[in-house]
Amino acid sequence: MSQSTPTHQRLAFMLRINPGMGEGYDQRHQQVWPEMLDLLSRSGISDYSIFRRDETLFLVLSIAADDTFDAVWQRIEADPINTRWQDSMAPYFQPLTNLRPNERFPMFQQVFYMP
Amino acid sequence: MSQSTPTHQRLAFMLRINPGMGEGYDQRHQQVWPEMLDLLSRSGISDYSIFRRDETLFLVLSIAADDTFDAVWQRIEADPINTRWQDSMAPYFQPLTNLRPNERFPMFQQVFYMP
Repeated sequence: MSQSTPTHQRLAFMLRINPGMGEGYDQRHQQVWPEMLDLLSRSGISDYSIFRRDETLFLVLSIAADDTFDAVWQRIEADPINTRWQDSMAPYFQPLTNLRPNERFPMFQQVFYMP
Repeated sequence: MSQSTPTHQRLAFMLRINPGMGEGYDQRHQQVWPEMLDLLSRSGISDYSIFRRDETLFLVLSIAADDTFDAVWQRIEADPINTRWQDSMAPYFQPLTNLRPNERFPMFQQVFYMP
C-alpha cells in the first residue's frame, strides 16, 4: 500500500472465556484498575480494543513499529500489578490451545488495511 | 470511560475461509481493486483491518458514530462493483453459521477500549 513508513504495528489475538462468564468479564473491563491501564500504556500498548461475542474474545492493539510483542509483554509481566490483575482474571479464561512454537497467544496477522 | 463524545464507532465480526485458501485470500487483499476501496470509503468505512490465522478471519472497522452497519452495508451492496467483488471472493468463504436474528455477520461487541 502507498503509505509512508508506519510508526506503529497492529497486533491481534484470540482468547476464550468460560461459558456464562461474559457479563462478568465485561463488567471487569469497564473498571480496569487505573494502575493496570497505566502499566499497559507505559509498556508500549495503545489503541487497545477487546471485542467479545459469547465466549470468544478478540484483542487488537498497537505497539511501536520498532518494538516486539514479546518485549512489551515481558515489561508487563515484570510488574506485580500485572500479577495481581492476571490472578484476579484467571478464573474467566479457558486454557490456550493450538499455540505454535514460542507463541504466548494465538496471534493473527493483519492481511489487509485501509485507512 | 472519561472520553469526549466519540466521532466513530468500532465494529468487528468474524468469518471463516475454506481450508488451504489462506494464501490466496491474502494475495487478493494485497491487490484489492481501487474502485472497491473507493466504494468502501465512500460508503462510510475507515480504519479497516482484516486479521487472519489459518481459516479464521477477524474484521475490524470504523463507521461514523451516527451511522449504522446496516446502512453502510446497504450502500455497499447497492453498487455493482461490490457484486463483482463478492462474486470473485465467494469461493473463499465458508457458509455463515450461528447468526442471530437480523444479523448479516457474527458481530462482536467492543467491551474495552484504551486509547
